[in-house]
Amino acid sequence: MHKKLFIPGPTEVRPEMLKHMGTPMIGHRSKEFSQLLGEVTPKVQKLLYTKDHVFMSTSSSTGVMEGVVRNLVEKKVLACYCGAFSERWAEIAEANGKETDRLEVEWGRAILPEMVDEKLKKGGHETVIIVHNETSTGVMNPIREVAQMMKEKYPDVLLAVDAVSSMAGVKIDVDGWGLDVCLAGLQKAFALPPGLAVFSVSDRALEKAKKVPHRGYYFDFLVFRKYWDKVQTPTTPSIPHLFALNKQMDDMFREGLEQRFARHGQMAKVARDWGKKHFALYAQPGYESVTLTTYVNTREISVAGLNEELAKRGAVISNGYGKTKEKAFRIAHMGDTTLDELNELLGWIDEILGLS
Amino acid sequence: MHKKLFIPGPTEVRPEMLKHMGTPMIGHRSKEFSQLLGEVTPKVQKLLYTKDHVFMSTSSSTGVMEGVVRNLVEKKVLACYCGAFSERWAEIAEANGKETDRLEVEWGRAILPEMVDEKLKKGGHETVIIVHNETSTGVMNPIREVAQMMKEKYPDVLLAVDAVSSMAGVKIDVDGWGLDVCLAGLQKAFALPPGLAVFSVSDRALEKAKKVPHRGYYFDFLVFRKYWDKVQTPTTPSIPHLFALNKQMDDMFREGLEQRFARHGQMAKVARDWGKKHFALYAQPGYESVTLTTYVNTREISVAGLNEELAKRGAVISNGYGKTKEKAFRIAHMGDTTLDELNELLGWIDEILGLS
Repeated sequence: MHKKLFIPGPTEVRPEMLKHMGTPMIGHRSKEFSQLLGEVTPKVQKLLYTKDHVFMSTSSSTGVMEGVVRNLVEKKVLACYCGAFSERWAEIAEANGKETDRLEVEWGRAILPEMVDEKLKKGGHETVIIVHNETSTGVMNPIREVAQMMKEKYPDVLLAVDAVSSMAGVKIDVDGWGLDVCLAGLQKAFALPPGLAVFSVSDRALEKAKKVPHRGYYFDFLVFRKYWDKVQTPTTPSIPHLFALNKQMDDMFREGLEQRFARHGQMAKVARDWGKKHFALYAQPGYESVTLTTYVNTREISVAGLNEELAKRGAVISNGYGKTKEKAFRIAHMGDTTLDELNELLGWIDEILGLS
Repeated sequence: MHKKLFIPGPTEVRPEMLKHMGTPMIGHRSKEFSQLLGEVTPKVQKLLYTKDHVFMSTSSSTGVMEGVVRNLVEKKVLACYCGAFSERWAEIAEANGKETDRLEVEWGRAILPEMVDEKLKKGGHETVIIVHNETSTGVMNPIREVAQMMKEKYPDVLLAVDAVSSMAGVKIDVDGWGLDVCLAGLQKAFALPPGLAVFSVSDRALEKAKKVPHRGYYFDFLVFRKYWDKVQTPTTPSIPHLFALNKQMDDMFREGLEQRFARHGQMAKVARDWGKKHFALYAQPGYESVTLTTYVNTREISVAGLNEELAKRGAVISNGYGKTKEKAFRIAHMGDTTLDELNELLGWIDEILGLS
């Protein structure tokens, strides 16, 4: 039996979208392909409220995270670190030989503008890399406020945002906030299978890349830019994902972006209220993620045992990640998941654990 | 109407395989996923006649080509260059700041062992990068002989092979020949959609990587190696491609590898004989590709015009690539394409062009 995915990625994919993954193949240098890419790109721009270039990378988001440090950092980067995925970004920067200044907060806490300010004061940073929604801790960082502070005080420092588990579930106003890069994979709030990442790049970020040597090739933003004019991708892309994304974007607009974001807000409220009643929330109050909730396992339940029971009902949730593996558990409420489905899941958990 | 793809990638994908691309989603850290990866990996090892590690990269093959130069070259690489795709590999090496010695032959010619020998004599090369089957010119380089020469004369130099358009269509004996890396994407002779690359890495290549700094992350072979023991991929992979690959490998073994390679040989013979009769072959005699044929456009036909007519019959072929764009055309005969389908295509072309 298929288990409906309430794990924070990959998320559940609707049968209709799975079907689009099997669209008959076309050549990636054909007119049909350029038409497809020419259709889907402005749709993602619309989702991100941006006029910036939006590129498609056949990779997981991690690949684009690597692209960010290779394109936008010649010497020194500020890596904001508040959980497993932001830690990985710092490691990636180091693996590429970049001087990596780390701003670290305790897991469960948010990165606040004044913390970033404190670090940037020391000077020398070319780019700040930060995770919007830390999938390990369920914390949503106040990106808008960080961006605002940077615009006022450090207008020359670039800001790159990993929005992997927030994009398409939460409003991200790339142009309004002033994000230089905003990236995500399709397997979270887009509710599509993993295998493709999308990312916006500001003009000034492209200008910066021109000055950074040894950007490589596969994630070189300027190579993506070069193929933009031909409405092509630099290398053979995952065409199935582009077919599905094109259809999924239409469905998103049919629901309405504001309605979609509101639905995510409603689900988050239900997930938090349930958590406060029966467990505790892992995230610092006021900075809880809208797309997933991380619960402190105050009852010391066996998450594996719970999942065994849930499997019989056709659902699966997630344990903690990294150092919270045993101490927390996570429920994703994003993508095409509905409030009814979330309520049904929470009802099952109540029943299994004997909560009321 | 869908046009059956006789272009050298993406190739035609059978409806059954398209359906597997839409298999309901599972988590990439689940037991189900490890089972899937644990099933498919030995199947690819069997195809490559190797006991080496075989990794799956969610990227086009170009990404793994970048991985090769980042992992196996600290200072200097010998890039064998005989067409558009081998040229790209040399460019990638340079884009990563590696000293790139180029062995260049005229388009249409093959790279011969004595040419590689001549270059390696000068010393200082850590790795040779070479394309097995140059998709632009339709030349198949004698990799086995190059590897043999290197084993005898330069046992410490690594050999990395781009087998993008030959793997799964032609026998490649990774262990027998002694290839340190052998890489390909799924969208050629595997007859699956693009979006995933597979590659083997020898133990000595992994040892070499340990000594090369700044390998990055996404294509770091040692990161792939680290996750091998957990039967996982380092980052969220394209699960749909793995589902389809697992099924496609079964079908390959059902046909029989030797039978599959023989079928490719038969199709190549038909494609060449037809070409010699009506046009001319672009590749140096004796080094013609087994998976695609590049024809010199001796009749100065309009390939676009031909494709318009073929489209009405539900098929598409390819023009030349790069500098042969107008002067050549290409027909792929690989993957799940049958001899009957190829004969039907050539019959249509005869009819359209009035050949007999």
